Amino acid sequence: MLNFFSGGESHGKALVGILEGFPKGVKISLEFINRELQRRQAGFGRGKRMAIEKDEVEVLSGLRAGVTLGSPIAFLVRNKDAYIEPFLKDNLPPLAIPRPAHADLLGALKYQEKDIRNILERASARETAIRVVAGSFCKQLLSEFKIEVLSHIVGLGKIILPKGAVSLAEIRRKTKDSLLNCIDKEKEREMVEEIKKAQNKGDTLGGIVEIVCEGLPFGLGSFMSWRERLDARLSYALMSIPAVKGVETGLGFDYARLRGSQAHDEIFYSKNRGFYYKTNNSGGIAGGISTSQPIVIRIAMKPIATLKEPLSSVDLITHRKKKAPSIRSDVTAVVACGVIAEAMTAFIIAQALLEKFPSDTLSSLKKAYGFYLKTLKG
Amino acid sequence: MLNFFSGGESHGKALVGILEGFPKGVKISLEFINRELQRRQAGFGRGKRMAIEKDEVEVLSGLRAGVTLGSPIAFLVRNKDAYIEPFLKDNLPPLAIPRPAHADLLGALKYQEKDIRNILERASARETAIRVVAGSFCKQLLSEFKIEVLSHIVGLGKIILPKGAVSLAEIRRKTKDSLLNCIDKEKEREMVEEIKKAQNKGDTLGGIVEIVCEGLPFGLGSFMSWRERLDARLSYALMSIPAVKGVETGLGFDYARLRGSQAHDEIFYSKNRGFYYKTNNSGGIAGGISTSQPIVIRIAMKPIATLKEPLSSVDLITHRKKKAPSIRSDVTAVVACGVIAEAMTAFIIAQALLEKFPSDTLSSLKKAYGFYLKTLKG
Amino acid sequence: MLNFFSGGESHGKALVGILEGFPKGVKISLEFINRELQRRQAGFGRGKRMAIEKDEVEVLSGLRAGVTLGSPIAFLVRNKDAYIEPFLKDNLPPLAIPRPAHADLLGALKYQEKDIRNILERASARETAIRVVAGSFCKQLLSEFKIEVLSHIVGLGKIILPKGAVSLAEIRRKTKDSLLNCIDKEKEREMVEEIKKAQNKGDTLGGIVEIVCEGLPFGLGSFMSWRERLDARLSYALMSIPAVKGVETGLGFDYARLRGSQAHDEIFYSKNRGFYYKTNNSGGIAGGISTSQPIVIRIAMKPIATLKEPLSSVDLITHRKKKAPSIRSDVTAVVACGVIAEAMTAFIIAQALLEKFPSDTLSSLKKAYGFYLKTLKG
Amino acid sequence: MLNFFSGGESHGKALVGILEGFPKGVKISLEFINRELQRRQAGFGRGKRMAIEKDEVEVLSGLRAGVTLGSPIAFLVRNKDAYIEPFLKDNLPPLAIPRPAHADLLGALKYQEKDIRNILERASARETAIRVVAGSFCKQLLSEFKIEVLSHIVGLGKIILPKGAVSLAEIRRKTKDSLLNCIDKEKEREMVEEIKKAQNKGDTLGGIVEIVCEGLPFGLGSFMSWRERLDARLSYALMSIPAVKGVETGLGFDYARLRGSQAHDEIFYSKNRGFYYKTNNSGGIAGGISTSQPIVIRIAMKPIATLKEPLSSVDLITHRKKKAPSIRSDVTAVVACGVIAEAMTAFIIAQALLEKFPSDTLSSLKKAYGFYLKTLKG
Repeated sequence: MLNFFSGGESHGKALVGILEGFPKGVKISLEFINRELQRRQAGFGRGKRMAIEKDEVEVLSGLRAGVTLGSPIAFLVRNKDAYIEPFLKDNLPPLAIPRPAHADLLGALKYQEKDIRNILERASARETAIRVVAGSFCKQLLSEFKIEVLSHIVGLGKIILPKGAVSLAEIRRKTKDSLLNCIDKEKEREMVEEIKKAQNKGDTLGGIVEIVCEGLPFGLGSFMSWRERLDARLSYALMSIPAVKGVETGLGFDYARLRGSQAHDEIFYSKNRGFYYKTNNSGGIAGGISTSQPIVIRIAMKPIATLKEPLSSVDLITHRKKKAPSIRSDVTAVVACGVIAEAMTAFIIAQALLEKFPSDTLSSLKKAYGFYLKTLKG
Repeated sequence: MLNFFSGGESHGKALVGILEGFPKGVKISLEFINRELQRRQAGFGRGKRMAIEKDEVEVLSGLRAGVTLGSPIAFLVRNKDAYIEPFLKDNLPPLAIPRPAHADLLGALKYQEKDIRNILERASARETAIRVVAGSFCKQLLSEFKIEVLSHIVGLGKIILPKGAVSLAEIRRKTKDSLLNCIDKEKEREMVEEIKKAQNKGDTLGGIVEIVCEGLPFGLGSFMSWRERLDARLSYALMSIPAVKGVETGLGFDYARLRGSQAHDEIFYSKNRGFYYKTNNSGGIAGGISTSQPIVIRIAMKPIATLKEPLSSVDLITHRKKKAPSIRSDVTAVVACGVIAEAMTAFIIAQALLEKFPSDTLSSLKKAYGFYLKTLKG
Repeated sequence: MLNFFSGGESHGKALVGILEGFPKGVKISLEFINRELQRRQAGFGRGKRMAIEKDEVEVLSGLRAGVTLGSPIAFLVRNKDAYIEPFLKDNLPPLAIPRPAHADLLGALKYQEKDIRNILERASARETAIRVVAGSFCKQLLSEFKIEVLSHIVGLGKIILPKGAVSLAEIRRKTKDSLLNCIDKEKEREMVEEIKKAQNKGDTLGGIVEIVCEGLPFGLGSFMSWRERLDARLSYALMSIPAVKGVETGLGFDYARLRGSQAHDEIFYSKNRGFYYKTNNSGGIAGGISTSQPIVIRIAMKPIATLKEPLSSVDLITHRKKKAPSIRSDVTAVVACGVIAEAMTAFIIAQALLEKFPSDTLSSLKKAYGFYLKTLKG
Repeated sequence: MLNFFSGGESHGKALVGILEGFPKGVKISLEFINRELQRRQAGFGRGKRMAIEKDEVEVLSGLRAGVTLGSPIAFLVRNKDAYIEPFLKDNLPPLAIPRPAHADLLGALKYQEKDIRNILERASARETAIRVVAGSFCKQLLSEFKIEVLSHIVGLGKIILPKGAVSLAEIRRKTKDSLLNCIDKEKEREMVEEIKKAQNKGDTLGGIVEIVCEGLPFGLGSFMSWRERLDARLSYALMSIPAVKGVETGLGFDYARLRGSQAHDEIFYSKNRGFYYKTNNSGGIAGGISTSQPIVIRIAMKPIATLKEPLSSVDLITHRKKKAPSIRSDVTAVVACGVIAEAMTAFIIAQALLEKFPSDTLSSLKKAYGFYLKTLKG
């Protein structure tokens, strides 16, 4: 089964990933992966660390001359700002003040730890660089089947775009020179204003990202067991992104307000298209299975947890009231969150694709996929 | 690892479940399980099938004299309305018209099937009876640690309650004679009106359920890998419930609109309580770990897919336009959805508990748990 | 992924199994399953329990009119000799004397248990009836691809057959009226004598079973990770059978004595057959992958643990020296062990087949399989 | 759950491993790991590659100042003889002649590959360096509980030691200056002669390794499902080592020849020791659970597959008969096989330990372990 595993501390030597179960024979662009890593570091509102780290992947196994071998793909993303040594003593002072809304306190209690550094180094969202690399491999596999995933920002602070279908072509075109990966120039200007205002107050912002995936066939995912449902698996993968607090597919929470007659996508047929829908309220998934419509998911990100004007906390050792430390100074990272969400979406879709079709080699996968597409016209 | 597996068609002989990894020595009440099954069938707005089926569990293994043995717990819920025979031919006419918003069409295409009955029998939400049984075992385990899960309805159609913290005691008290498991009598009356109106039009409704879990300690779940995060796992389990289209924890999507200074829960300490929070915007989980605050999750359910006044569809064989069949006539099942959501939540919490502590026997689990609680005061 | 799960105590109401991930569209013979169950109960040297239990499967889900639906297949095997009640008190006296070579003492210590009955009910080999049912489904799937698994007895007590290649046709023909599933009439007579002698002494015997599987293509299993190697997985499944203490493939332990030049199977090619081997020292697996030669595995079974003339033990409570109880009186169960081994082998081979090829439906599986076979000729 | 994953080609840039689920707070010696890596490369009868590669681990995450953080431990072992580039074209000529007894042909057919280099790079046993590193972490965890694993050579070619119990102290003492990790000097001399003779003929040898693990408590592993049985899991892990063709625990295949009265370990009790055995025919595991006796397992290794005097094969492209290439020139690698087997054993034992006890931190693990040991005395 397609899967990936990761290790790495935020200021350790490197982040490390292993992507297992990837088929043989897929041509991989190194530039594409590095571009994805850079997209993760971009977006208006990011702070200093992003200037220090220009992430680049170093692939160590699983490819030869740019083509996958079918073997596990192992890779590194080195930390330029690295000071945690596996075997040497550093002289870093222990961190004793947990930052609210982080894992700091929770990890310290769970692991009976007095130096919060030993918690936050792994709990840090820096880990998501590995997800972006894994996802960028999956995107390149999916592109062989003309399946593509993109995200765009539909909310930042209180500036929120109205819901509405957007195609990938539209997203690509309209976000071209966007500071915030937003398809609406006017709203983007307001978002930038919001960020500046928050920055001035030493405050932070969250937002809402929409992920769109086009090109899926009918039939990925399954209702045979709860674990196999495609929306459940996407929800798992997306809610696992640090700071994500909500996930909805299609109409999502708005579904609750509508009657069945208003909400459900009716079924149509034409000789050319086979079965199809005219609406996509379901967001491309029903009964845990892809409907061949675009997958549309929205996720909510909470504001960055570390504030320049810090919140109230307590010293782990002395139990005295203290201001939380202010380690980094991003105001918002919603654009990055979108890139990570694309990666996790691509990973889950690729996994579902490789479950339904033979996965040893790209050529056998393509053969079976092509044959399946023919059966769909029925 | 605690896990459960299920089989069973909606009109087959029985639904079957196996719950693996449950500790030895837990006293189990059969009455409690059957009461949970009945709660799944209740709620204003349900149709005829609920009158036919009075679900009861039949436990076949894993217990002796009401106490768990540590071995897999196997159980049945028999279907009273059973006509699918594993080895005998029935003379049921094939179903050819897929119902919109169901798995009907998608399953038929995925499995190259012409009789939709072979799809809908497993895709049916009847499968969730097994989840409720598995969850009711988990609830009884959790109650040994004073961890409790309940749900209540916070939205039905366009009637939506304002957000606000509610304790389990409050939920228990205020929903006592409720038709719709709602803590607000006035809103409930409006919800009942909505249901009657929809019923008159042959239409259906969805809603929003809030799940609350009290009594968790600090430290369940983990950020060490994305798979272990408690919110991600809850999201996976909840989004896998048929018709659920959105999940949010704590402030959820509202988080996006707030600044960090408004949104994040500050940390406090007192000798009696140890570390604590005064607010619970996080919904009891941060960094993928339980915060010892109540877990608060809201899920959105889409309207029942089958309408009495049916939607437009297409015959699978002839490809002619047809009205979808109207097999069952629930107007809404949001109350049931809440019971299933409680079960899935209890399952995930119990799983996380048994990961952190030794799980062979209840007594060793209690010992290690008690010792851990002491370390938390620090 | 194809998998099965089981529950059930030896004298509980029933053994229960769920087989997940089985493709849609496979025609299943109920008679075949029951015949396999009866084969598990046969063999010269069995005792009274086998006369009491005439195992029959009851399928509860996953099939309609004898054809699989692609959904989980749930099934029961009821215990006729049933007295462990899940919720009622039995008045069975506690068992305090652990039988050597059983899990009795180990389970009692692990689970801090004073009544050994609570251990041995699940530790009992009766659980393997479920494996035989699961395996008999897998055998029927494999037979669609002309892949077949059989076992025969090559050792019983000190009577041991010389190693040598045997075809399935030969096994089928020569074991037809065999009391001990043995291809050598003369040796079988000696084995029967051994059993009678042991019986007279109140003693027990073990033996050696050879499992042969014909019809596999090149390429099942993988070396990409240690978990995927076909021989490792077979070894896992076979060593998990109660009383099995050794597993070897092909020449097995004899490999150690030979030089490479004597031991390794050379590679040949002909237009008709494609690549082939003239020898099969590897037992059909090399590099963790099937070689298209018959898979040949031998397993060693220790003597039945419960003796009529019992061994020395200790009372769990009083710690006094006691004779072990003599609950059942099989002299040997090597024939049954072979049937269980066939089942586990069929399960692992079917799992590997469904990993390499698409598994939703038998028809898509056959299509992809047929195409793959063509590529093998090169 | 404790688990490890690996990537890496034999002549790629590096082998990469990630060890997940390792508890926090374990002190790790880098020297120990590197010594284990060197043990993997030693043993009389190894060839040139072993002289080129002096393996050293580079740990990238999961430790700080020599102590584990509870986070995934990622590490590399670089290949000094590295010429496979992930993104650059090498000008290596394709390999077309599959070596018998390797994965060469099987992988080429499975993956529809014409250049065998793309198969053998991952199928190579060089991958086992990662297992040794993962195992050396597990050994250091186990040593905190005085659980220790060692191997010794009991057979090489036709020179085979008689079976008999050996303690770890004995193994350590008697193999101190051994060329072949053998406890019998006289037999070792004969083994060395065998190796020299085989070398002169351009031939290769296999052998038999015995793995001994002391210090386990009662109760690791479980009979609750077949997947949890400790012997089955060890068998899985050991049979997955390249070239291993047989596994037996305790008396193993000799069990088949004995009567129950001769074979089974009787149970004793004394105030000091609690329950104990005087014999260890079971090899430390019964009913899938550890008996607190030493675990004793023997594995059979086939002769090295690549011969200097090569075997007959066929060109993949032309289908012409050819001599197999002679890439490397080890005569035997049984000593290395033992080191790898120790690693896999330590991994499985550590996994079982962390399943039974709480695994977040070494201190909570020790506390629960200590308490459990007390309950065992009854």
